[in-house]
Parts: sequence; C-alpha cells; structure tokens
Amino acid sequence: MLKLYYAPGTIALATHIALVEAGAEYEAVRLDFSKKEQLEADYLAINPKGRVPTLVTERGIITETPAVLAYIAQSFPEAGLAPLDDPFALARIQEFNCYLCATLHVAHAHRMRGHRWADDPLAIADMKRKVPEAVGACFEMIENGFFQGPWVMGEAYSICDPYLFTVATWMDSDGLDPASFPKILAHQDRMKERPGVQKTLAEHFG
Amino acid sequence: MLKLYYAPGTIALATHIALVEAGAEYEAVRLDFSKKEQLEADYLAINPKGRVPTLVTERGIITETPAVLAYIAQSFPEAGLAPLDDPFALARIQEFNCYLCATLHVAHAHRMRGHRWADDPLAIADMKRKVPEAVGACFEMIENGFFQGPWVMGEAYSICDPYLFTVATWMDSDGLDPASFPKILAHQDRMKERPGVQKTLAEHFG
Repeated sequence: MLKLYYAPGTIALATHIALVEAGAEYEAVRLDFSKKEQLEADYLAINPKGRVPTLVTERGIITETPAVLAYIAQSFPEAGLAPLDDPFALARIQEFNCYLCATLHVAHAHRMRGHRWADDPLAIADMKRKVPEAVGACFEMIENGFFQGPWVMGEAYSICDPYLFTVATWMDSDGLDPASFPKILAHQDRMKERPGVQKTLAEHFG
Repeated sequence: MLKLYYAPGTIALATHIALVEAGAEYEAVRLDFSKKEQLEADYLAINPKGRVPTLVTERGIITETPAVLAYIAQSFPEAGLAPLDDPFALARIQEFNCYLCATLHVAHAHRMRGHRWADDPLAIADMKRKVPEAVGACFEMIENGFFQGPWVMGEAYSICDPYLFTVATWMDSDGLDPASFPKILAHQDRMKERPGVQKTLAEHFG
C-alpha cells in the first residue's frame, strides 16, 4: 500500500487529492512542521530532503510534486488524470506543473524560507516584502495565459488541477487578493465541489 | 520540424543534447542574452516567459526543461532515453529532473537573477554571496545520494544525464571546485565522450 507523508497547508495537499481521486489505497502520515518533524532523523532516513510530500511505494520513495502526480496518473490510468499516450498534451501538463514547482512555489518560499538563499536578516526581510509581487506575477501568467477553463487544461480535468488548487490556497497569506484572479477563484470553488476534494480536505486538515 | 530556441551556456543545452541523441530533426535558433533578445517582442510572442529553452512543435510550444526532456523521450521511444512504461522508474527520473529544475537551478539563479526575488542591492549581494553554499549543497545531495553511476540512474543512460551535465558546467562560475564532486566530474568526462554530446557542443557553442 502507498504511504503519503504530508503536513497540512503544504504542497502535499495536491498529492493527497490526486491519491483520493485516483482511487488509490494509501495511508496518510501527518508531520507537524511546527515541531520540525520533517527534520527529525526518522524522517530524514526516509526522505533526506526533509520536505513533503514523500510517497512511499513498494519499490522506494518518490518526491517532487510534478513527479509524484505523474506517477499517480500513470499508475491509475483508469482515473484519467493525464493524457498518458499523447506526448504533447502530457508535456503541456508537465510544463504547467513544473512552472508551479520551480517558479510559483519558489517565489512563495521566499516568504518563509528565505534562509535557503540568504543569511542577512535585511536580505530575508527584503525577499519577504517582494513576495506579493513575485507570486502575483505568477498568478497573472496563469490567469491571463496558461489557464484554459473550466479546468487548467480545458475540458479535461488533470493532475494540474489539484496542484493549482493547492498553491492558490496560499494567496491570502502571500498578501494577494484572490478577487484579482477571477478565473483561479472560480476554479477554487469548482474544486471544492468535487467529492474527492471534500473528502481529502477533511482528512488533510481534520 | 521541431525548432529549439536556445542561448549558449543556459539550461537549453540539456534539451539540445537530447534532441541530437534522440535523432530528431530540428532547427536550432540561437538567442543572444547579452542583447536581451529573450525579452524582445518577437520572442515573447512565442514564449511569454522570456526564457529558454522553447521547443516549438507542430501543435504548439513546450517549455520547462523536465517537460521538454520527457516530451523528447516519449516522442522518440526508439532512442531509449527513459523507461516510458515503468511508472516508478519514470517517476524517479522526473523527480531527479524536478530537483535540478526547482532546487539546484533556482539556487544557481540567485547569482545572476536575484532581482526576481528582491530589490535591495544589499539583499541581491547577500544572495549572490550564498550561491556557492546553496548550489554546493545540491551537488552534495547528488554526489552522495541521487547519483547511481555510471549514469545518473545507474546502468541506463536517460534524460537525467544531459540535464546533470548542463548544470554541472556551471560549477566554476558558481564558485565551486568540481574536484569536490568526483562522481559528477567523472560523469562530465563520460558525457564528453559521447558523439552526440560532442556534436551538440560544437553546434551549441560554435
């Protein structure tokens, strides 16, 4: 059985939703980031990166959200979470998810994790100050470019949707007004109507 | 025919190598970053991100190196650049490539692109100062953990290899001593022995 290590409010929510919607059997193990459990030796022995999500499979672990989501889509093809046999359509999905991973999530991380890239408290404070602008620019690209609607890739729901849903829950704390991004806001509401998302949110935050 | 927009010395080299090794027919279009050609209107009309690589296909563009590399592997299966039908092995490849994209490349980008995340010149200088430490920590993870040898994923060459090769060419300019990473250094040499890599380097930097 798959095992998901997660912490509430993190990007692991995207994987959590995908597991539920794929119909996977899994065990969810919650870490408490306020106690830095992700940096304890027991967890680092599982995932030396000290981050979430970690998906434990019978063959080993998988980390990095775009990789984990694609693994779930490919392992549960009947769930139809990605156009597995269409290299172009699949690449567009991976492109979107990589953008969230390497650009939007990174911009967001400068609010709480500035110590990864600087030491001077002034530098860390300046990074934090710029977060609304940097993250906002990413959501602008999505709102006015990448997002097709009603789902990220158009008519077909995919592994892009739980990923966008998850990062968009960070808008308020990143100093953004969700009303500035009406398509993404409507997507949030559309996601919350899905039974699998409701079930996941209850488990994830419950 | 595929068209690759690239600039010498950028991450687009990984895609360039993969195209050559896949046996793809392609046209390579060089941008001059010193003239900021990636930010000119003509190019932004093609790729609004203003970055490279951009792979132009008959169905549209693909960006983000992990997505582009996976597209090439899936479009040219006879080249054997990824275990396409093994969800776990493919996920490990995507995981490695996402790590390069979202962690190592991002750490590297704080040397020249700090303005993405801060405005204060002191902050940008402090980011730059920390680059050897932050990028070095990534190469440590690869050298002592992820890298299996002789290729990234062990005996099978894959789309991880041109990606690692490319980011490792930045070690000197990021203030790292390649001799501190002997497995990665040997991998660089192994890569340079490949005819496809030699051919690509001649075109890419020629």
